[in-house]
Amino acid sequence: MRKILIIGIGAGDPEHLTIQAINRLNEVDVFFLLDKGDAKKDLVDARREILDRYVEKPDYRVVQAVDADRDRTPENYVATVAEWHQRRADLYERLIRDEVGEDGVGGILAWGDPTLYDNTIAVIEQVRQRGNVAFEYAVIPGISSVSALVAAHRTSINQIGKPVHITTGRRLAADGFPPDVDDVVVMLDSHCAFTTLEDTDLDIYWGAYVGSPDEITVAGPLTEVGAKIPPLRAEARERKGWVMDTYLLRRRRS
Amino acid sequence: MRKILIIGIGAGDPEHLTIQAINRLNEVDVFFLLDKGDAKKDLVDARREILDRYVEKPDYRVVQAVDADRDRTPENYVATVAEWHQRRADLYERLIRDEVGEDGVGGILAWGDPTLYDNTIAVIEQVRQRGNVAFEYAVIPGISSVSALVAAHRTSINQIGKPVHITTGRRLAADGFPPDVDDVVVMLDSHCAFTTLEDTDLDIYWGAYVGSPDEITVAGPLTEVGAKIPPLRAEARERKGWVMDTYLLRRRRS
Repeated sequence: MRKILIIGIGAGDPEHLTIQAINRLNEVDVFFLLDKGDAKKDLVDARREILDRYVEKPDYRVVQAVDADRDRTPENYVATVAEWHQRRADLYERLIRDEVGEDGVGGILAWGDPTLYDNTIAVIEQVRQRGNVAFEYAVIPGISSVSALVAAHRTSINQIGKPVHITTGRRLAADGFPPDVDDVVVMLDSHCAFTTLEDTDLDIYWGAYVGSPDEITVAGPLTEVGAKIPPLRAEARERKGWVMDTYLLRRRRS
Repeated sequence: MRKILIIGIGAGDPEHLTIQAINRLNEVDVFFLLDKGDAKKDLVDARREILDRYVEKPDYRVVQAVDADRDRTPENYVATVAEWHQRRADLYERLIRDEVGEDGVGGILAWGDPTLYDNTIAVIEQVRQRGNVAFEYAVIPGISSVSALVAAHRTSINQIGKPVHITTGRRLAADGFPPDVDDVVVMLDSHCAFTTLEDTDLDIYWGAYVGSPDEITVAGPLTEVGAKIPPLRAEARERKGWVMDTYLLRRRRS
């Protein structure tokens, strides 16, 4: 039976790799690296560096393919994402069928933690359910960008005994700061949705490229430091061609 | 300057250790292992096993101390926890002052990810702010029990583009399933609060000792499998003397 391993590689520091991930990397016959275009070449390079560094098995192969692209400002978000997933599933189905031997192992390197705001598991499950190619798969957890962010800020995701809400930039912009929680983690926010909030009692803990040599962090009252972040982010993005950032918003209680 | 490293060791599999964590373990002169009593001796043993396995530095020391205990069913939760933190801060202050040399490095091994429902960071920050002993500290993220849980179930913490709520068993029992989210992760639930929910459209993904040889997982509609979990949990707890479990509740949408 073919086997696919979805392996979390952590949030930007090659030393985020776990021993489990390294052991599983060394079982893989063929790695799939999806290329998102020139600007994000760094992200492919980072994955190649991880393979060079940790894989001792001499005979593994790397198959690079052009990732399915998607409309980043769609009219219908849900339909656009569903259609994008379908095209990613087509791509992975083809790769698994054509590139993994009948008893072979295929590997996918997932940035951060594959269980948090990453669609690889859902896409691979979709391929499995289609039934056109038989395989089993396993998920190897990784250090999430959220853990790396708050560790860099030496704080916790939650406050003692309190709940946490994790949401997207799109939803934060649409719905505002959620009621009934004091701590909100925001992922996938390319529009700096925190600038739309009118709350004056929030602290922000922001970071880009956390865990990498390019790490940038900003923390403080949102009303004081919030406006500094969009130009910092834009400048970094311009310089590197891509940016990955995350933040925690925490309501101050008197 | 003294330095304290709060190192995430992952959620039960010694192979959850990251390369970063292993490198930092090897900088430590003295490790603090807090003992929570005989029943939880396994948890101290697991930490000793990690040191034996990964630390190559020959001359490190281990100082074992009796952890501050607390009332598990307090009348006033917030005050009880604050007082417990203070006693843990007293303990760590004494250990840092007495056991770490002026240029030494002290290490604390935090189960799972120290940034998620673990009070070590808050306690160490409290010690720092008291100012009785000068030190700096750093936090090394780990694989959280939540990531390990959902990876074992081959699902994600979130659904596509949707928010996630992380809360405690205590709050779930008091407030019910939160409105406006479909995915709720529950931590620190020793009373199986999911059994108090009347919702009939929830799936549960539950796991105990995830990532360890004792791993137990249950998944399915809460109305069908929910009742199986408390006896399974009680039996496991009886057998091993302790149990660590977590779960995800997911609302089914038609």
